[in-house]
This record gives sequence, structure tokens and C-alpha cells, in this order.
Amino acid sequence: MINAGIIGGAGYTGLELVRLLLMHPEVEISVVTSRRYRGKKVSDVNPHLFPFIELEYEDVDTEEIADRSDIVFVAVPHGSAMDYVPELMARGAKVIDLSADYRLKKADYERIYRREHKDKEERKAVYGLTELHPEVASADLVANPGCYPTGAILAVAPLVKEGMVKQVVFDAKSGISGAGVEPSETSHFPNLAENIIPYQITEHRHVAEMRMELHVKVSFTPHVIPSIRGILTTAHVFLAESEKTQTKPLQGLRGRGAEPHNDEIEEIYKRFYEGKRFIRLREGMPSLSSVRGTNFCDIRLEVEEKSNRIVVISAIDNLVKGGSGQAIQNMNLMFGLAEEEGLWFPGLVP
Amino acid sequence: MINAGIIGGAGYTGLELVRLLLMHPEVEISVVTSRRYRGKKVSDVNPHLFPFIELEYEDVDTEEIADRSDIVFVAVPHGSAMDYVPELMARGAKVIDLSADYRLKKADYERIYRREHKDKEERKAVYGLTELHPEVASADLVANPGCYPTGAILAVAPLVKEGMVKQVVFDAKSGISGAGVEPSETSHFPNLAENIIPYQITEHRHVAEMRMELHVKVSFTPHVIPSIRGILTTAHVFLAESEKTQTKPLQGLRGRGAEPHNDEIEEIYKRFYEGKRFIRLREGMPSLSSVRGTNFCDIRLEVEEKSNRIVVISAIDNLVKGGSGQAIQNMNLMFGLAEEEGLWFPGLVP
Amino acid sequence: MINAGIIGGAGYTGLELVRLLLMHPEVEISVVTSRRYRGKKVSDVNPHLFPFIELEYEDVDTEEIADRSDIVFVAVPHGSAMDYVPELMARGAKVIDLSADYRLKKADYERIYRREHKDKEERKAVYGLTELHPEVASADLVANPGCYPTGAILAVAPLVKEGMVKQVVFDAKSGISGAGVEPSETSHFPNLAENIIPYQITEHRHVAEMRMELHVKVSFTPHVIPSIRGILTTAHVFLAESEKTQTKPLQGLRGRGAEPHNDEIEEIYKRFYEGKRFIRLREGMPSLSSVRGTNFCDIRLEVEEKSNRIVVISAIDNLVKGGSGQAIQNMNLMFGLAEEEGLWFPGLVP
Amino acid sequence: MINAGIIGGAGYTGLELVRLLLMHPEVEISVVTSRRYRGKKVSDVNPHLFPFIELEYEDVDTEEIADRSDIVFVAVPHGSAMDYVPELMARGAKVIDLSADYRLKKADYERIYRREHKDKEERKAVYGLTELHPEVASADLVANPGCYPTGAILAVAPLVKEGMVKQVVFDAKSGISGAGVEPSETSHFPNLAENIIPYQITEHRHVAEMRMELHVKVSFTPHVIPSIRGILTTAHVFLAESEKTQTKPLQGLRGRGAEPHNDEIEEIYKRFYEGKRFIRLREGMPSLSSVRGTNFCDIRLEVEEKSNRIVVISAIDNLVKGGSGQAIQNMNLMFGLAEEEGLWFPGLVP
Repeated sequence: MINAGIIGGAGYTGLELVRLLLMHPEVEISVVTSRRYRGKKVSDVNPHLFPFIELEYEDVDTEEIADRSDIVFVAVPHGSAMDYVPELMARGAKVIDLSADYRLKKADYERIYRREHKDKEERKAVYGLTELHPEVASADLVANPGCYPTGAILAVAPLVKEGMVKQVVFDAKSGISGAGVEPSETSHFPNLAENIIPYQITEHRHVAEMRMELHVKVSFTPHVIPSIRGILTTAHVFLAESEKTQTKPLQGLRGRGAEPHNDEIEEIYKRFYEGKRFIRLREGMPSLSSVRGTNFCDIRLEVEEKSNRIVVISAIDNLVKGGSGQAIQNMNLMFGLAEEEGLWFPGLVP
Repeated sequence: MINAGIIGGAGYTGLELVRLLLMHPEVEISVVTSRRYRGKKVSDVNPHLFPFIELEYEDVDTEEIADRSDIVFVAVPHGSAMDYVPELMARGAKVIDLSADYRLKKADYERIYRREHKDKEERKAVYGLTELHPEVASADLVANPGCYPTGAILAVAPLVKEGMVKQVVFDAKSGISGAGVEPSETSHFPNLAENIIPYQITEHRHVAEMRMELHVKVSFTPHVIPSIRGILTTAHVFLAESEKTQTKPLQGLRGRGAEPHNDEIEEIYKRFYEGKRFIRLREGMPSLSSVRGTNFCDIRLEVEEKSNRIVVISAIDNLVKGGSGQAIQNMNLMFGLAEEEGLWFPGLVP
Repeated sequence: MINAGIIGGAGYTGLELVRLLLMHPEVEISVVTSRRYRGKKVSDVNPHLFPFIELEYEDVDTEEIADRSDIVFVAVPHGSAMDYVPELMARGAKVIDLSADYRLKKADYERIYRREHKDKEERKAVYGLTELHPEVASADLVANPGCYPTGAILAVAPLVKEGMVKQVVFDAKSGISGAGVEPSETSHFPNLAENIIPYQITEHRHVAEMRMELHVKVSFTPHVIPSIRGILTTAHVFLAESEKTQTKPLQGLRGRGAEPHNDEIEEIYKRFYEGKRFIRLREGMPSLSSVRGTNFCDIRLEVEEKSNRIVVISAIDNLVKGGSGQAIQNMNLMFGLAEEEGLWFPGLVP
Repeated sequence: MINAGIIGGAGYTGLELVRLLLMHPEVEISVVTSRRYRGKKVSDVNPHLFPFIELEYEDVDTEEIADRSDIVFVAVPHGSAMDYVPELMARGAKVIDLSADYRLKKADYERIYRREHKDKEERKAVYGLTELHPEVASADLVANPGCYPTGAILAVAPLVKEGMVKQVVFDAKSGISGAGVEPSETSHFPNLAENIIPYQITEHRHVAEMRMELHVKVSFTPHVIPSIRGILTTAHVFLAESEKTQTKPLQGLRGRGAEPHNDEIEEIYKRFYEGKRFIRLREGMPSLSSVRGTNFCDIRLEVEEKSNRIVVISAIDNLVKGGSGQAIQNMNLMFGLAEEEGLWFPGLVP
């Protein structure tokens, strides 16, 4: 059994880790921390977890957490994770950080998150988008991707790899659970119901991860929709023009003049994602309910006629594939398990 | 492995059976029928089930279904189930009928459902409310309870058993999935969103099951709320007056004059539901999310001061404990398994 | 023109007063107060009101408010209204208090709201349920009814007047706007969406108003539904038994043995509400959308067969008929206007 | 008084015309047609309109409709409007067609809507986007714009006029009322709640109107959100590069290297929409609730740093500014009234 600790177990990300790890056949939860709820039973604070977990929330030393755990999930806000990670690693625990603290280079992090990075080292973390980074398997520190970047990058990675993409605009729509467990103006029911709320429409920080992974021109505009879970990403992909790119795959594609065929593009996706069990290429439109509660990323694309635009739709559950489920998928690889261990179940439809 | 057939696998009840049975370690789904989708892969029609089920929908003889199955779940509308049950049983299959066809005595059925009962026999079915009917374990035919009766009966059964109840009004609020997979006026989003729809406010047919099980004066008023899943039942229980009932338990209770204490009533519930793993007596208010996707029934009660009223709140997922989950719980008992086999996981919160 | 002041213009009740008074042909808003937003334009804080109101929020002396206004709407939380009312009246302003401070007798208020009443006088306020209290027309101080009592009392008043009612249980379902503009656990979207939340199930304070007006045995259980506006009240009415009551109207009714006919009961409602323009007796089921944004109360009833129960459904918009609209209806009468002035428009369907 | 007829008064567009015209001080509704509900009172079929309209639905000759009306609103599906328009005009009625039948040139219409245009003439209709087409005032036939094109065109027209736009991608999110009054798979509550549904992601027909009005490269991807009303359009605008366009306004703007300042762009919008009373340029983010039930179009923009992209957000009520309200705005101009007559009220917040 793998002993797994969770730092920050009272937020949505931490609770989703608990929910999923409780169903994982190879894991025992060793410790769950929360300063606010210290000494209370996890299942008293979160009655949906009764009677599945006997543990109390604890507020213990980082060292002790490391000692009691083979792996520690750090599920605290960015800026706080780096308070724990160096010591956890020094004590020999493997770490999956669900915050943004180790996703970017330190210099980039400090510029984008506008705070000093407190870790003295330029620590090498693997960016835990499992489908793109098999090196997760040998990592000691995984930086679990942001929810938006997960849906966005997976939507276009195959096209980018082919050198076909000149620019992409991600127009993303997220359920409100991504904003966390604390009530706010945005999560206030009368403000969100019957509404859709765009925010940080030209400057959301998650765009840095997308650029880091994709190396093409990326714009990103997020919205919150009146839904609890899920991110639907609409990727407006502009293809590099043939006379400029002259890449081989692209030339081969241009059957119908300047435009690629749907079939050809779908073939690229199939090849790219072959064997990736959590990527489902769809003939129908992805829906948030099909992925609800699951680690799947559903994808569908359509080539616009007489245009250089391809529209790719991806759907994930922001708390699972966009967070805690992907973290567990990473853990599985780090411990030599099948990537779907504990995560292999269908979505909650309807 | 138990071979389980599903007749009517394209509605919400049938699909929920598929979803849950796919996760059941002791079951193999042997056949799923649908006239409408005959020949199509179940996971093509219902993409959330991909790649978990390879089967195609079939439209085969009842005899063949029986031959290929140890147990058959009949998930067709009431009035149709009785077309299948006699033959299934004649061929030796165990049957769990999720329709209303075998819940009541034939005469009552014919009066209330206003149709002739086509089964020639007065077939003895066990009413599959597992917590109240352990004789399910030896049944060949189980009539799976209606969704509303499940939430209602479980809410008050302990009080009724004590002889304390004179009358009860169930005011129930259901998610719209109870109305089925077909679009209708009621399920039309602009009609249901920002609304709550009472219907059949004095004469819903499910009241017959409640009366059959409870043997007290029962009224029932259902409403549809803008939610996909879940039934929250508010039971307004009026206690028998002490001078009339003179029952022992009641006398013992009357610590504070005419009113019982909360603690005493809670004690009654604890005793009654001891060892019933899917009943969770709550200190906080039950919520639909805590039971979402699960087979739990969460219950909380409060004694009204200076009154003869107790309010009991119960929460279930109408498609699980109120339908397919309870059916599997029954199957578990019929096959000597632990009642929670394949059903033991926490709800989808948030 | 009537100069109308609003004390507490930043909450939902105050804002709804602004919205409605802006459309009222006989009213000019003279002052809107808010400590928090003092000095900011009302339409900057609430962009939906742009460009309809030029005023800034003010934080001025109660005397000045009185001097600038013919009538003052007090839209602050209970416990605060009594800080303003005595002085407003002393300076000659008419007052409509939308809080609970003047609805009950002082002694009752202090017991139920568990605080001292700071007004030195036992001030005589008319309970502003216009349909029942025409004496509003000559009042200087109106205590505007609570949102729940409005829907509840209107649902059963005709039956009570006939002496037919022995006991009534109000099971009410409210939109979340009734809980106010401040984000909270209950209004947090992931907690309320796909849920329904019962609260204060045996002891909500609004029951005191219902008892004061109805003089029968009343129980009340409120729930919050995932809707912004609206209250749907399900009144479970238990009729007085004929041998006990022996009232004339009741005897006359008992055409079908012990039960009254629907027609007869409807006739009672028609007579009772004749000429009351905001009461609509419905043949179909009331819906929250039909009353959305309006001052209507829609009512429908159904007599349960072979029972002493009548179910009455009423629907109101909690912020209009259940609050600010009713306040304006009261103002209209106090100033000799038609009661529907400024309030006569259909609901927002769909 | 203007006598206004409505052909097709049982759908959402027709009903919204009724709702709004009932509040219009200069209009009397002369006739409302519906084949399905012929002979039934409009307020019986639509109880929210009681007691505001006495009329019954009629099914009468087009000639008679024309004779009884100064203006006729045609609110039937596209393909049917052209059955009425020629005769209405021949009899001298002014016509506002809310369908797509007269928005495009006949040849374009036939290609895009894949049906023959039955009108024998190439009839000259004014495209009724009032803010851009003051010539509406002298029109006899107005083609009322589609809901999506209204939100999209208004979002970017000022930039297009300046010659600044190279390409624009409209990513639109609509409430489900745009899909009409008939229940469907998409409007089925369990399918839409907790979801967002992209559709016709590269080929929606409304794009033709956008191209017709904007004359730049336009792509359009619509989604349905779990909301009843409203369209939020996210316009991703790509600016023409300075070396190519060399237009004067653009040169003047480039204060900060290649990028324009927010202020400068906002100034362009202010100038363009000066005096347009239903356009509200916002400092905060537009929301669907601020425009709910109203004829406003709220707009906000943001220039992306170090990029050639501007993001413009517009919000409308699809049934009002995106349909019936805009139709009435057109009518007002056609009859010499102020454009806001009957339409000047704030949105329903919360």
C-alpha cells in the first residue's frame, strides 16, 4: 500500500483527493491537514465522506507528514506550497504539488504571480500532464497542471506537434468549483445563476503554462458558467499558412486546396493519443456530464470550411482531470501502477 | 460471476443500472435490451459509458434473456414489466422489477394504475425496501420500490413501528431525472429553471406504496425542482395523542409534558437502523449532494416545540437508492453478497 | 409627485424598491442611503440601474431624510429599523418598515427575535398585507409583512375566515435572494445548485406573523431552492371536523359526505378575493416564472379525496409581493392612489 | 394609437412582443395569430399575461391581418415568413419580420438556408440593427436581425468602421430560450443543467449576417448555457497590422508601440455609440442579469498586452434586444416615436 498524505484537505482539491483516494485499491491515506479544522473528523466537516474515512484533520510538522507518507499531495493555494515542498523532499517523500508554485521557472513564476519564490533551489519538477510527459514516471516532484491549461493543452497538442498551428485562442468555460470552497461575489447564487461571467479576459495567469507547453502564440479568455464542475474549452486554432510552414505533414494534408480534411486531422489526433486511456476522441459533441466525476478528457474537432480555422472542443472535470484525478494519475505512474488505477469509472450521467 | 440482464437499458433507470453494475466486482452484464437502439453499441448511444461496455443493445426473446442471465432487471415503464416477468420466472431467472407492476396487490394495482394486470397469477413479490424487508434475501421476485416511497417510508418507519404516528404528510421535492429521458414540457429548461413545479398534489399514485408499508394516514404532495438528481422528502409527522395511544414507548418518552425530546426520537432511529449501512442519521441537514450518485439515505429529524409535530428530512439519489442502486442492493442480498457490494463509495461533492 | 426616501438602498429589498419606484409615475426618489457606498452613484454600484437614477448613496441624519421625503421606506435588517422609525414619524414622514420590527407586539417581538425593542412606545403599525388590511389606507406606519407570511397567509386566509381550518402546515420553498446580497455558505453556488436546503424546519421566526393573522394552529418549514427569486408555498390545510365545528358555511359545503367540493372551495376564494387585483386564482399550477418580477400572488387549490386535507399552492416573487412591491402597494393606498399604480405589468416569462 | 398585429404569437418571440407591447403607451395589439391555439384566449394559454390581454388567438387571412393593423410583426420560423410578407405589404401594412427571410439577398438566403425563396420580388428590406441603420425610420419592411448577429455586430462595429479589424472570432454563449418553446434534447433539463453545449461550431447560419454587416473575416462558434435568457458574446478581435492598413486612426493610436491603449479604443466606442440610448459602455464586466428583460446591449473591451488582440464582451437579452425589443425599437423609429418608447426600464436584478 502507498501511504499518501494530503496537505490542505479542506478545500475542493483536497477533498476530491480524499474522495478518489478512498476508492483507490493501492492507497491508504496517512494524514490530512487543515489548520481551520484541526482535531475535527474529516467526515464530520464533510458529511459526504462518512463513514469512509476515520481520520481527523491534523496540523502537524511538515517533517512528520513526510515521515508518515510515501507521497504527499500539496493542495494549498499557490504561494503556500513552496513552504512545504523543500522540506518534504528533503525527508524523502515524493511530492505532487497541485498549486502553481513549481509549474514555471522561478523567474517566470515571480513575474507572473507577482511574489518572490521562497524555495532556495531552482527545483526541477516534471509538469504533470501525463499524456505529454511520460517522464512523470521517474519524477520525485510533479507540478500538477492548472485546470484550464489541462483542457487547453490537450485540445491542441497534436496539431502543435505537427507544426500546423500559427495561433490559438482558448475560450474556456468553467464551473464555479474552480474558484474554491469559500463563498464570494462570483459564487453568490444570484450573481452566477442565469449568467455567465467572463474574467481576466486578456491576462489570466494560466496562459503562461499553455505557452510553456505549446510554444505557439496563445491567447486565453476564461468564463465562469452556472455549473458546479467542468471545463469546456473552445480552442479556435489558426493554422500556419502553407507557403510559410512548408512542413511535410501539412503539405500532405492539403487535399482540398488550402484546407485540411476533418478525417486527416482526426487521424493526427488518433495517432497522437494512441494508448492514452483518458483521452476520448468523440464523434458527438463533448459534454460536461460525460466527464463529470471522472478523469477523462473528451475531444472533438471540426475544420471550418474555406478558412484556416479549426475549432477543437475539449471537456474535462476541473476537479478530476483538471486537478486531483490527474494528480492521482501522476502518482500511479510514479509508483509503477497502471495510470488508470482507482480512476477507471464512467461519468455521472444524467 | 453473476450474469445480469437488463430489459429496458436506454432509459435513465436502465442506464444507471449499467453504470453501477459495470463497477460491481461480482457481476457481468449479459444482455441489455432496447427496441429503439437495437444493434447500436450501448456506448455509442451513451458516450459516457465508453469504453466500459462492449455490448450492443439487443431486442431478443424474453426466453433468451432468461437463459443468458442469473438475474434480470426489468427497467421498463409500468404496464410493460408484466409482459416479461412471468416468462422470465418460468425460465428460472430471478427478477427485480423496477416498475410498479408487482409492488401492490393486483386489485390495488388495477384500481390505482387504471389498467388490467396481465399476469395471470397473483405473484408474490417481496417489496424491495431492503432495510425493512430482509426476506428479500430469499426472494425470486423483488418489486423494487418507487423513488418517492423509498425516501418517504425510510423517513418515518421507526416512528411508525413505535406506534407513535397518527398521520403524516410527505412534501417531496424531486430532481427532474425522475421524469425520464424523454423531453417534455416539465423538463423543458425554461419551464423548470428558476421554478419549482408541484404536480398531482393530492393524488400521486406512489401514495399507495407508502400506505401499504406504513399503515397510517398518509398524504403526499410531490414537486419537481431545478435539479437533475435527488429527492428531498420533508415528512410532517403528527404524533398520536398520548391518551389515545397509551403505548409503552410513547409514555416513556413524554419527559417534557406532551412532547418527546429530540434525543429520545433519535435513539429510536438509531435502534431501528442499527447495522443498516446505507442509512446515515445526520446531525446537520441532509443535502442532495451528499447522496449524489450513491445508495445512501440521509435522515435528520427535529421535534417541534409545544406541538405534536416532528419534521423528518430524508435525502436520496432518486436514480440510486430510489431506483437502480436499491435494485442492486436487493440483488446483493438475493445472491448472498454483502448488501453494499459494488455500492460503497461516497457522493459527488461538490 | 410623492417624494420617497429609502433607508438601506444597497440590499436586495432596497434595490428592488429603487427599480420599481423608478417606473412609478407618481413617485420621485428623494434620497437613498447606504453607509457602505456613501458618495458613490447608485448606478455605479448597481449598473443595471444606469442611466435611470442620478442619485448618489448618502449617509445623512434621519431628520433630514424625513424632511426630504413624504414617505420613507425602511429597508434595513430587523433590529435596525427601530433606530429610524420613531424619529421619522416625529418629523411627520409616513413610514413603511420592511423589517420585522413593527410587525408584532413588542413583547412578542422581544421574545421571538431575542432582543430588546428600542422604541419607547408601543407604536401602532398596520400589518401591510393589503388584501386583508384595507386600514392601510389611513396608516402612518405600515409594517410590511415578511416574504414567507405573505405567501402563506394569502394561501389560506379565505378558508380560515370561514372557520374551516383546524391546522395548517406551510411547506415553503424560496429562491435564495431572500437571504440577501451578502455571499454565504447557503448562497455559495456549489452548495445550492442541484440541491434544496431545508432550514429552521420547526422554528422559523416568520411563523409568529402567520399565527397572528390566522389564529389557527400553524406549523412552518422553509426550504431554499436553486432559484434566484420566488416563493412557492404548499399549504397542507386540515379541515376542522364537522361535528366539532358546526359552523354554517362548513355544513353547507359537505355535499359529498365529509369532503367539500373543489368548486365550493374555489367559490369561497373568489368571493374573498373579489376585486383584489394582485390575487390571481389559477386553474393551472402556479409557477414562479408567471409572477417573476411582479406583485401578483397566484393561487390554486385542490381538495384531497376521502380526506380532511386541502392542498393550496401559492406563488409570489419574494422581492416584489413578498417585499418591495407590496410596500409600494401599501404606499399607493396610503396616498390615495390605485393599488396597482406602478406595479401593473406581466411577469418575465420565460 | 398604432395598431399592431402579431403573426405567430405562441412562440417565445411572439409572446415577448405581446409582453412588451402591452406596456407600450402608443400601441394597441390588434390581432395575435396561432393555428395551434386558435380560439383560445392568449392569457389562458399563457397565464402570465392575465389579465393584461383580452384577445383570443386567431387564425385569419393575411389580408385581414393587414387591414386591422398599421404594422405587423411576423414572428414565425424562417421559411414561413415569406408566405405572409408580400401580401401584408401589398395591403399597405408596414412589416417587421423577425425571421431570417429578408435579412440576406435572395441568392445568399437560398444558399445558406437551403431552400427556395418564395417571394417573387427581390424585396428591399432594411436590416433593423437600429444603431447602425437609421434608415429604418423610412422603411416599410424591416428585417429584424438574428439574436447572435445583434450581440456580435454591436460588439465590434466601431472597430470595423475604423478599419482596424483584420479578423474576428465570435464565441457566443446563449440562454436556451433562443431555441424556442418546443421541448428538445438540448432543452431537456438533465442535458443542459451543469453543462454547456457547443453546436454548429464552424457553420452556424447567423454568420452570414455578421459578414454582410461587418465586411471583415468572421468566424462564429455558438454555445448554449444553462440559462433561460441572454447572450454573452466574446469577440476575439485581431487587429489589422499597421504596416498593411496605414489608416489614419490606427496610426494615431499606436502610442505604446504596436498596441493601442484601452482608453483610445474606448474613445472610439464612445464616439460611435454617442446618443445610442440602448448601448451601455461598461467599466465592469457585462452580465446577463443587468440586461435581463431589457433592450440594452452592454459592452466592455480590453486590449491584450503585447498582442494584436482586443477582447470585446457584449451582453444582451436574446428575446429583447436580440429579438422582440429590437423589433419594437424599429417600430418606434418607423412611426416617428422616440426609439426607447415602451422599452425604457431597468433589468431584473437579481
